[in-house]
Amino acid sequence: MPSKSQKRSSANRKPRKIKLTLEYDGTHFFGYQSQKNQRTIQDELEKALRQLFQKKIISYGSGRTDSGVHAEGQVVHFETSSDFPLQNIHYGLNHYLPRDVSVIDVVEVPASFHAQYSAKWKLYEYRIFHSKHRSPLELRACQFPHPLNLNKMKQAARLLTGRHDFRPFESSGGRRKTGIRTIRKFKIKKTGRIISFFVEADGFLYKMVRSLVGTLLEVGSGKMELATVKKILKSKDRNLIGATAPAHGLILKRVSY
Amino acid sequence: MPSKSQKRSSANRKPRKIKLTLEYDGTHFFGYQSQKNQRTIQDELEKALRQLFQKKIISYGSGRTDSGVHAEGQVVHFETSSDFPLQNIHYGLNHYLPRDVSVIDVVEVPASFHAQYSAKWKLYEYRIFHSKHRSPLELRACQFPHPLNLNKMKQAARLLTGRHDFRPFESSGGRRKTGIRTIRKFKIKKTGRIISFFVEADGFLYKMVRSLVGTLLEVGSGKMELATVKKILKSKDRNLIGATAPAHGLILKRVSY
Repeated sequence: MPSKSQKRSSANRKPRKIKLTLEYDGTHFFGYQSQKNQRTIQDELEKALRQLFQKKIISYGSGRTDSGVHAEGQVVHFETSSDFPLQNIHYGLNHYLPRDVSVIDVVEVPASFHAQYSAKWKLYEYRIFHSKHRSPLELRACQFPHPLNLNKMKQAARLLTGRHDFRPFESSGGRRKTGIRTIRKFKIKKTGRIISFFVEADGFLYKMVRSLVGTLLEVGSGKMELATVKKILKSKDRNLIGATAPAHGLILKRVSY
Repeated sequence: MPSKSQKRSSANRKPRKIKLTLEYDGTHFFGYQSQKNQRTIQDELEKALRQLFQKKIISYGSGRTDSGVHAEGQVVHFETSSDFPLQNIHYGLNHYLPRDVSVIDVVEVPASFHAQYSAKWKLYEYRIFHSKHRSPLELRACQFPHPLNLNKMKQAARLLTGRHDFRPFESSGGRRKTGIRTIRKFKIKKTGRIISFFVEADGFLYKMVRSLVGTLLEVGSGKMELATVKKILKSKDRNLIGATAPAHGLILKRVSY
């Protein structure tokens, strides 16, 4: 908590911009973004900021994550005129935050930095637990019981890599002006019974990763031809894509600036 | 569900003995063993067995796991005179079991098999998340913030390996006649910020793994000398051992027969 002298001395100081990296288990959250009467990560963070700095502080996230989606590297910034050492901000926030959110990094950034507008690339991982029976210990993975052709899925991922209009992969409710995005990486990696989809792009439309994964699962299980993937990109026909994969398998891994 | 003809035909059949392997997240359980007015894994399993076979079936576990302890390979047996195919028992039980328990293997075993008495070795893993800040995504790991000397901990683990009287590592409430057990494996492995302790023995006293880990953490953080570990084994002085590590970092990995 700031002492009176700290408060006084900080009155005329130029505010510092602080960048936080957050890890959270999204299971019991109604997504990242602040919402009335719902438990959200942003609200919990701003509650902790208020308790630490004893004043209302607005935070800016790199973007929202949906209800049930997890993060290993969500990025948020805020401004403060306090002179708390960064380490104290780190320990202090983790003291006030609930168990399912944690600040994993705190740095000071230039005034020009903006968690959302300065973001260049976002990397997501979607995890499939590939088994006929569920695993109670693999909570952040979606169980998929049917055989999968990994090679076909990798071919589909290659088709989707690059600069395309991804609007067919946007769930209704999205409000972007353009659907043009660049996927610079779309890798599939199998480790034991976990199949991970790593997707990195300069931006994502509403539920885009989960639509991409749902479509790849249809390709992998033989329900969809690779030709159909090409057709989706060309015709932009939303009706051709696979079902949106559930939220609990999705993790925001990293935001690059 | 058995048809009438199945019920009739099974009346005179010699019962089959079935061995189940269970995975569970112990977080919301009051341990393995059946208890009045508490949610336990045994009770959930017997509820599912009753629903599947339409009669009361008693199950025998390899041993109890404490409140909050997880399992990747708990073993249980039961008898049934039904002729359900094993695959149907597997799917049927997972249909009736709650989300945090899952049957991962079903096999028929000889009448002489007993999940508890035939068990030869049990392997546990205890997981430490070695960091100054908690990780909301590493739920099955205990956070430890202080520096650790891994080599010293490995030396202590070697001292504890073999046949010893482990009563100093038994929490009060244990009721075994003898404290002599053989640890045949006690390995420490670091993967990123996770430090895993693998302990395999022919049996464990009450909370023994967690007391062993607590003691090794004191050795690793410089609070206890290796000489003290030797002294504990020799003098059997309970007052010298480290604090019992919390339940949520412990996983029953495998029971060998």
